[in-house]
Amino acid sequence: MPSKSPASFKVVNTLDAKHRKLTRKDVQAAAKRLKNWGRWGKDDELGTLNFVSAADIVAAAKLVRKGKVFSLALDFDAKGPQGGKSKYPALGRFNPVHVMLRTGTDAYSGVLDHRKIRGADDLVIMPLQCGTQWDGLGHIFYEDFMWNGYDCRTVTTAGAQKAGIEKTKDRMVGRGVLLDIPALLGKKWLPDGLAITNEMLDAAEAHQKVKVKRGDYLIVRTGHVEAKLAAKTWDGYSGGDAPGLAFESLDWLHKRQVAAVVTDTWGVEVRPNETEDTNQPWHWIAIPIMGLSVGEIFYLADLAKDCKRDGRYEFLFVAPALPITGAVGSPVNPLAIK
Amino acid sequence: MPSKSPASFKVVNTLDAKHRKLTRKDVQAAAKRLKNWGRWGKDDELGTLNFVSAADIVAAAKLVRKGKVFSLALDFDAKGPQGGKSKYPALGRFNPVHVMLRTGTDAYSGVLDHRKIRGADDLVIMPLQCGTQWDGLGHIFYEDFMWNGYDCRTVTTAGAQKAGIEKTKDRMVGRGVLLDIPALLGKKWLPDGLAITNEMLDAAEAHQKVKVKRGDYLIVRTGHVEAKLAAKTWDGYSGGDAPGLAFESLDWLHKRQVAAVVTDTWGVEVRPNETEDTNQPWHWIAIPIMGLSVGEIFYLADLAKDCKRDGRYEFLFVAPALPITGAVGSPVNPLAIK
Amino acid sequence: MPSKSPASFKVVNTLDAKHRKLTRKDVQAAAKRLKNWGRWGKDDELGTLNFVSAADIVAAAKLVRKGKVFSLALDFDAKGPQGGKSKYPALGRFNPVHVMLRTGTDAYSGVLDHRKIRGADDLVIMPLQCGTQWDGLGHIFYEDFMWNGYDCRTVTTAGAQKAGIEKTKDRMVGRGVLLDIPALLGKKWLPDGLAITNEMLDAAEAHQKVKVKRGDYLIVRTGHVEAKLAAKTWDGYSGGDAPGLAFESLDWLHKRQVAAVVTDTWGVEVRPNETEDTNQPWHWIAIPIMGLSVGEIFYLADLAKDCKRDGRYEFLFVAPALPITGAVGSPVNPLAIK
Amino acid sequence: MPSKSPASFKVVNTLDAKHRKLTRKDVQAAAKRLKNWGRWGKDDELGTLNFVSAADIVAAAKLVRKGKVFSLALDFDAKGPQGGKSKYPALGRFNPVHVMLRTGTDAYSGVLDHRKIRGADDLVIMPLQCGTQWDGLGHIFYEDFMWNGYDCRTVTTAGAQKAGIEKTKDRMVGRGVLLDIPALLGKKWLPDGLAITNEMLDAAEAHQKVKVKRGDYLIVRTGHVEAKLAAKTWDGYSGGDAPGLAFESLDWLHKRQVAAVVTDTWGVEVRPNETEDTNQPWHWIAIPIMGLSVGEIFYLADLAKDCKRDGRYEFLFVAPALPITGAVGSPVNPLAIK
Repeated sequence: MPSKSPASFKVVNTLDAKHRKLTRKDVQAAAKRLKNWGRWGKDDELGTLNFVSAADIVAAAKLVRKGKVFSLALDFDAKGPQGGKSKYPALGRFNPVHVMLRTGTDAYSGVLDHRKIRGADDLVIMPLQCGTQWDGLGHIFYEDFMWNGYDCRTVTTAGAQKAGIEKTKDRMVGRGVLLDIPALLGKKWLPDGLAITNEMLDAAEAHQKVKVKRGDYLIVRTGHVEAKLAAKTWDGYSGGDAPGLAFESLDWLHKRQVAAVVTDTWGVEVRPNETEDTNQPWHWIAIPIMGLSVGEIFYLADLAKDCKRDGRYEFLFVAPALPITGAVGSPVNPLAIK
Repeated sequence: MPSKSPASFKVVNTLDAKHRKLTRKDVQAAAKRLKNWGRWGKDDELGTLNFVSAADIVAAAKLVRKGKVFSLALDFDAKGPQGGKSKYPALGRFNPVHVMLRTGTDAYSGVLDHRKIRGADDLVIMPLQCGTQWDGLGHIFYEDFMWNGYDCRTVTTAGAQKAGIEKTKDRMVGRGVLLDIPALLGKKWLPDGLAITNEMLDAAEAHQKVKVKRGDYLIVRTGHVEAKLAAKTWDGYSGGDAPGLAFESLDWLHKRQVAAVVTDTWGVEVRPNETEDTNQPWHWIAIPIMGLSVGEIFYLADLAKDCKRDGRYEFLFVAPALPITGAVGSPVNPLAIK
Repeated sequence: MPSKSPASFKVVNTLDAKHRKLTRKDVQAAAKRLKNWGRWGKDDELGTLNFVSAADIVAAAKLVRKGKVFSLALDFDAKGPQGGKSKYPALGRFNPVHVMLRTGTDAYSGVLDHRKIRGADDLVIMPLQCGTQWDGLGHIFYEDFMWNGYDCRTVTTAGAQKAGIEKTKDRMVGRGVLLDIPALLGKKWLPDGLAITNEMLDAAEAHQKVKVKRGDYLIVRTGHVEAKLAAKTWDGYSGGDAPGLAFESLDWLHKRQVAAVVTDTWGVEVRPNETEDTNQPWHWIAIPIMGLSVGEIFYLADLAKDCKRDGRYEFLFVAPALPITGAVGSPVNPLAIK
Repeated sequence: MPSKSPASFKVVNTLDAKHRKLTRKDVQAAAKRLKNWGRWGKDDELGTLNFVSAADIVAAAKLVRKGKVFSLALDFDAKGPQGGKSKYPALGRFNPVHVMLRTGTDAYSGVLDHRKIRGADDLVIMPLQCGTQWDGLGHIFYEDFMWNGYDCRTVTTAGAQKAGIEKTKDRMVGRGVLLDIPALLGKKWLPDGLAITNEMLDAAEAHQKVKVKRGDYLIVRTGHVEAKLAAKTWDGYSGGDAPGLAFESLDWLHKRQVAAVVTDTWGVEVRPNETEDTNQPWHWIAIPIMGLSVGEIFYLADLAKDCKRDGRYEFLFVAPALPITGAVGSPVNPLAIK
């Protein structure tokens, strides 16, 4: 595909009400069209992570050529993305609370010496989706169902009895591909409400000379985290308006058979959503219907710069979730290794 | 080195008091002999992780040949290794408490529908060293000092102001080498109190035809986790008697310039310790004096079997800590990729 | 009623299977017979606490004659009643985790001085029913209903939308009456499985020369906490076999119109229960059907001794729940003031 | 004392720098002048709570005449006083996090029925001083000392080894006296920075015809909580500017021998403080030097209205701390019973 001038893309910005015309029927049709239930057997708990083959992993490892490692995590602390102002209702998530169980000041004060060792120890209290994180397959339900058609009642206060995040513990390794949409559009970062269309995804591939394929971990940069860091406030980030994938991208992802999709936004999809009668319609389909693992709040600035510099937008991607039994999400320190 | 019969190793078992003759003077001498303070500059916060070069990472990636991924983590849940009976004083660690903030039963009950999305969310409360974990460089002090000679008072109730675990966020990648000591000695797992001597480390290398070198992540299997899993109880595990590295191994590790050391025990070093006048003397030196990153409570059974099967004890090792700002440890889902 | 020799009571001990003959039908009949739904209006969220009148409070205050205060709470700490061994499935409760946010060792180390004040601060993580506690009216459901016939779906992961413990914040004051059953039966404490029958309750009143009446906070001593403290282990306490109220006591309590019932056991009612087809059948009726506030794990030893000494088994009882919005229980430091 | 017109009080408002002239020397002099160390023996852990005699409690109970109970607690929830904007550095406190361990939606969904009981259970995570609370005697240090001259190193990450809040478990009962300063001054609530002088305390007594005496729980109303509730924001409350007691009130309280002091502000004393070289100078003296128990963030609106209505500013005060072992503070549901 010949590269295209930024100005020539059809702009869809959902801040404008005319771009919020998606209906419940569209969502239902997508559910029918994109459903992967049973595709990997009736007992499957991994969904699209099944697309990654051993050969893909071997090939991905070969992309490590300069020995450079990029952490795609924000640090987990009180300065994290929760707690900012929002016009949307809160979800009860908060920044990690890190507390010490023993300290160097204890050591200095001599109060540990009866143990014959001076050490510090600590503890964290954290919503599993408070920062850079994976959505597990138990995170979103479609009507009374979760991934693979399991009854949503398998996710109780005792956790997810099916498809808990621990099931992915030896997955989350493969080829990562970064599609840098602001770079495509000649912007520092995308404005809130901008929907990333399939046309743009195609164009980004062409622009970057990379092709997303079966089993890839697709990482879509919007620049949203960077915009908030530059503004020195997370106001409006968590749950707020944001650039993000258009609903139609579900078909694109389905066709490409990606293993997972990751962005630097709070919720992957464009906000305001393309509809007012469902909240996060893309999620309704991606997670329970397609079985797609979704990564959010990734920090992509350094990786994007490096990719631009060396022209290589593919790398070994290793992003192991913490195997917390029955969890529907997990904080993660994802690595891109080039 | 010609391979040696298991029977010919000098057995050091600290359950026998005569093998607990290490003195405070020995520890002080080791501190002097093995001190790496200033080696990587007066502002260093990474210690021996500095041994890993970009070339090492590229070389390690080339070890990925069959696309097989091993998670070396135990699942994080109420069945974890904390809370077992112990004859030693408790440290206040407990198994992770995983609680749900929204559930599939909420969804089923219709109480989420006002949000126009049905989802589950969760939260964890966990001591950072309650399961498979990294010790950070702020975890242990030597007298009034931490790694690199920083004042131990830099680790306050506000966390570690120096060398917090988040500083390692783009490290913890390189060549992993497994030394399987029970395999060397013809045992399923090692008995409590058995000290792994330098002679055994050398012999394991010879036996496995692998050589530990600068920048490696050395993983020493004792079989201790497996013994407890087989016994279906963690009694005696956390803080209890265990096989583990002899104090003299510090010199071996120093000479080999490993990046980190990992075991499947609670505390790496042999317990009872080789002395009664210090607690965990190996830790006194390894962490604050050498700046060694230490991994504990790793699950090594499957990896060990595979290594035995294919005769390859080296692999790409990726074990990113959660970058919790100021933390002195971190739960981790470490991956060995072959 | 003339006092009766201990030997003359009919002994019901549910460790013997023949005393576990209660049926689901009995429970259903009790639900019908004892239902207080609507008794205090369709919007009531307080249940039997409504029995306490202002005059009762004035009268109760007059019982304060020697200015002696008894705390009926166990201390909240790691030595609390959770975590003991049990043959019954665990409920996920654990002892309080108390952590420090700033310390005197910080102060001593000088690291707080930039604040121009030296102070300590702390935090607790605790299941609300891990120690001495009130059961709120949202704690137990009868079929799909909670107290007053509210739909059980009003208790979601967002808490109890109806009858949260905070609704009791200016209640929990009135006349307390202690019935000391071991004293009646000439025992130090009651054996596991012993059911406290209505005959025994009547006899205890006669023996102690006190009459339980409308609006009273009835405190029934079994000695179970003391037995465990004497044994220096909580094994078998939380969720284990215990002495406790017989199912028939529901009628007695209903007739007497008590405001609340409190015991020194984990779960008020006798265990094993008088049936195997429901778990805690007394709770099925007491809380959702009658709207009875229930106190558990109270420490009664000192109060009981004092009552025996001065022959007065009535006192001012003040046991304010922490008004945690939407909570279904609350830790409490209940006071008996004589 | 004849009552005085509001206009005639000398106004001290620390928003004006000229009213911030207190020096470190003044604080040191107060420490010397007001020190109660040893007053109740060298092992005392209760401080001024010792002023309350049994006779005081009996007398206080007699103040219960209409059977009306006032809870002086704010509800503990996400809408609490933490998290507001502040120009002062944060202390790491946050509003309570209340999570459910089992729910009515679980019940409705049938997932609890294998237990043969349908119930809900819950858990709280809360800084002990996040809402209506007692400061324990381990909360503030004077140089290297805490109350009674104990070494401040007795408060470690393991909690307060001396004078933990649990030591007060059968105290916190006595005569409560409300002094309503806004009523005295003819205001709805006091402005930030207004210092309540000894002259005002005396005048409030005269105005209300009540006399504060030995062993009283003195409750000083400023209206600050009400001002924030009216403004529908806690911005500026926690740690922010506020009306409050003048430093000189320490002498007044010392002379009157009160058991404890309580206000409806975050930190009792006037803010900005009367000095810039110490932070919370009143606390430096009140807690570690005098051994005074201090209550903060009390809700006094309803009580104040009732006192105004019936002209009685004294009542039975019962405010039992949760006996969390080693805690330096405690949430509380304080009751005033009239």
